[in-house]
Amino acid sequence: MINKVFGYIDSNIERFVDELRVLCKQPSVSAQKLGLKETARMVRDMMEGVGLEARLIPVKDGPPIVYSELKSKSSRKTLLFYNHYDVQPPEPLEEWRHPPFEAVVEDGKIIARGASDNKGNIVSRLKVIEAFLKTTGDVPCNIKFVVEGEEEIGSPHFHHFIGEHKDLLGADAAVWEFGGLDEKDRPTITLGLKGMLYVELIARGAKIDIHSSEAAIIESPIWRLTWALSTLKDQNENILVKGWYDDVREFTPRELEAIDKMPFEEEIVKGEYGISKFLQSLTGFELKKTLLGRPTCNIAGVVSGYTGVGAKTVLPSQAKAKIDFRLVPDQDPEKLISKLKEHLKMRGFGDIEVKILSFIKAGRTPITAEIVKVAEEAAREVFKKDVVIEVTSPGSGPIYFFTDLLKIPTICIGCNHAFSKSHAPNENLRIDVFKEGSKWITSTMHKFGGQT
Amino acid sequence: MINKVFGYIDSNIERFVDELRVLCKQPSVSAQKLGLKETARMVRDMMEGVGLEARLIPVKDGPPIVYSELKSKSSRKTLLFYNHYDVQPPEPLEEWRHPPFEAVVEDGKIIARGASDNKGNIVSRLKVIEAFLKTTGDVPCNIKFVVEGEEEIGSPHFHHFIGEHKDLLGADAAVWEFGGLDEKDRPTITLGLKGMLYVELIARGAKIDIHSSEAAIIESPIWRLTWALSTLKDQNENILVKGWYDDVREFTPRELEAIDKMPFEEEIVKGEYGISKFLQSLTGFELKKTLLGRPTCNIAGVVSGYTGVGAKTVLPSQAKAKIDFRLVPDQDPEKLISKLKEHLKMRGFGDIEVKILSFIKAGRTPITAEIVKVAEEAAREVFKKDVVIEVTSPGSGPIYFFTDLLKIPTICIGCNHAFSKSHAPNENLRIDVFKEGSKWITSTMHKFGGQT
Repeated sequence: MINKVFGYIDSNIERFVDELRVLCKQPSVSAQKLGLKETARMVRDMMEGVGLEARLIPVKDGPPIVYSELKSKSSRKTLLFYNHYDVQPPEPLEEWRHPPFEAVVEDGKIIARGASDNKGNIVSRLKVIEAFLKTTGDVPCNIKFVVEGEEEIGSPHFHHFIGEHKDLLGADAAVWEFGGLDEKDRPTITLGLKGMLYVELIARGAKIDIHSSEAAIIESPIWRLTWALSTLKDQNENILVKGWYDDVREFTPRELEAIDKMPFEEEIVKGEYGISKFLQSLTGFELKKTLLGRPTCNIAGVVSGYTGVGAKTVLPSQAKAKIDFRLVPDQDPEKLISKLKEHLKMRGFGDIEVKILSFIKAGRTPITAEIVKVAEEAAREVFKKDVVIEVTSPGSGPIYFFTDLLKIPTICIGCNHAFSKSHAPNENLRIDVFKEGSKWITSTMHKFGGQT
Repeated sequence: MINKVFGYIDSNIERFVDELRVLCKQPSVSAQKLGLKETARMVRDMMEGVGLEARLIPVKDGPPIVYSELKSKSSRKTLLFYNHYDVQPPEPLEEWRHPPFEAVVEDGKIIARGASDNKGNIVSRLKVIEAFLKTTGDVPCNIKFVVEGEEEIGSPHFHHFIGEHKDLLGADAAVWEFGGLDEKDRPTITLGLKGMLYVELIARGAKIDIHSSEAAIIESPIWRLTWALSTLKDQNENILVKGWYDDVREFTPRELEAIDKMPFEEEIVKGEYGISKFLQSLTGFELKKTLLGRPTCNIAGVVSGYTGVGAKTVLPSQAKAKIDFRLVPDQDPEKLISKLKEHLKMRGFGDIEVKILSFIKAGRTPITAEIVKVAEEAAREVFKKDVVIEVTSPGSGPIYFFTDLLKIPTICIGCNHAFSKSHAPNENLRIDVFKEGSKWITSTMHKFGGQT
């Protein structure tokens, strides 16, 4: 039976590509509030075309969420797909080989903003539903789709939506928006995302920049910020804010096993970044464990005073640092904000403003969840390769809403490839991965529905 | 006799203003290599017009120096004037009330780039010579003028000139390019300038900016720079580089006495800067002593990573800090550069590049020098006010060439006023101070020549 569905995908892949190109040609840049409603309607229409019951759910102060569902005649289990129809801004435009919203096909790839992140996965998943319905007249499990329009700007209204529509969102497992093949085309199942606390620290001094001859007697905000920052993390990478690590959830033995087995191409990464060694000379298992498990305190930017060419003797009136803290499961960003403020106060820097730009908890699906095993078997069947289990991405995203708030085991699988340049110029989707990734979803649904 | 010279100045002040305006209308921006030769020739011609023997001395890789001299028939003492004919760039142009090179007269002021710094003093001093010659047929002491064209970019070739022309530069005393009245129109004699070591520290990491999810395992140059900076100065304003203070020359009892007597308008300064207190809550004598005597370590600028609006999660590949160290007499910047590099190496930051942008030693004239007494008496005579002796400016400049290299006692007096906005838009010269400051120079020359 599954082979008929695979065959349908093989026979119709060119049309699927064309339909994806139409969706990519419609700009939907959430940061620029561009084309969001139009794109939401296109996604709804595509869902209806496939055979789902779809509708737009209004979101206060934001673009609508596209919601759809389809009952299976043969299974009581429900699989929820989370996707987003918005894309990153295409700038800088001059670096694109082809215009970002023309969706040119070149060398077996669709080149377009959104092709990989995340319209490819939207179309792939919908076309799998179509393939099931056209070949079998049924889907192997109940299906739900939630497609939001603000993922690329941090999903500012998504938790409201979840709060108001919990009843719609019941499911036995969920598939996250991204996923696919790694640098060596190994299918990879990612089980979680780190959380994030993003703050700006602002130190203020005199109301104007002053000639630096006065530095002997006037307080310097950039010196105060420098001293304050140096109290936040020591040279051994320990975050010094009291209680920062209190709630950190350690990896389970099964997770540590998966981390040990996970490939990590140290030499390739070092070559790409032009570095001779990793932080603290880490390597092997410890390196991978640190990448996935360490809460970080990264200075993403700092600026004060004169930053042009040559010398200017100024005592700056203000200094700013942007800091992103990556969080691991069970760290609570709201608690950490209090601890950070308390730390600064205790160390004599209570006057430095702590501006909260965003925060989100980490989320992680247990490695023992049924959906993980199902997706792993499906990948082995489709790709005939060993499967990489990535216990968590080192990156961040709102997977917490699903894993923790809705308590749905959630995995990241799909049709992306490692060099798809999401968020960068020349974003692209490999058509071969689009096809095989769709089969991975097909097989995962099939096994998940209990029809192996 | 002196009253005849004063009378000549009074009668001719409008013509002097016109001649100054002509000089101001000629742009001479050293940073932009604009109009320097033309201006040098104008200054030479003005000197010849007054009655000095003037010439242009070529400078390798720089604009010429204007040199002139005039022998006195009645005195063997020589007074040397140091000036510069270059000016700061006029930008930002939109903030000027009148175009910077139109030299508009408004409310008793000449508004022009260079009006105060330093063309006003050039013309003032030359017109005093004219006044002496026209009214007495002589000057009260031998006169030398050295007018360079690169002061505003740090006098990069001036020490070569001094090395090659020491024979021309013998003098019993010198008058520095700037000087005049303070915020309350009190005549002020400044006896020195701090030195300066300006460096850029550059920390480098990966060859490209990296997604900050990798911060768990990739070294961060901005963190390394932050830690390195925090080893340079503690929160009590102590510079922690070993031996930094070794050679510091302490104030003499006479200098301390002058500092104690020096007015400093604490409330006005605090109001202007919008601060509630000075660094370390200093006040009174200690505040003034610190301002004039403390070697500083000021961060003039720092930049790394994303500095725009909102959040971006990047691990920056590079971080830069600009630091100006103000130096006091006997501190040797070349020794300090070695100490700074050694410090960074010892603290584990030997990989951070130390780029030297400029350095100059401090210079200070003994408060007991004859020229100080002479100028003080002259000021009291002209302004009928108490005179402020400023043992040193808290600012920096190459006065060291004169005080230490040529061993000429050098004072800063002239026709500037405290709100002249040198280096800023709407630079201006008060015509009343132009006139009275010229009389101050007149009386100083007169007394210095021994004809009191």
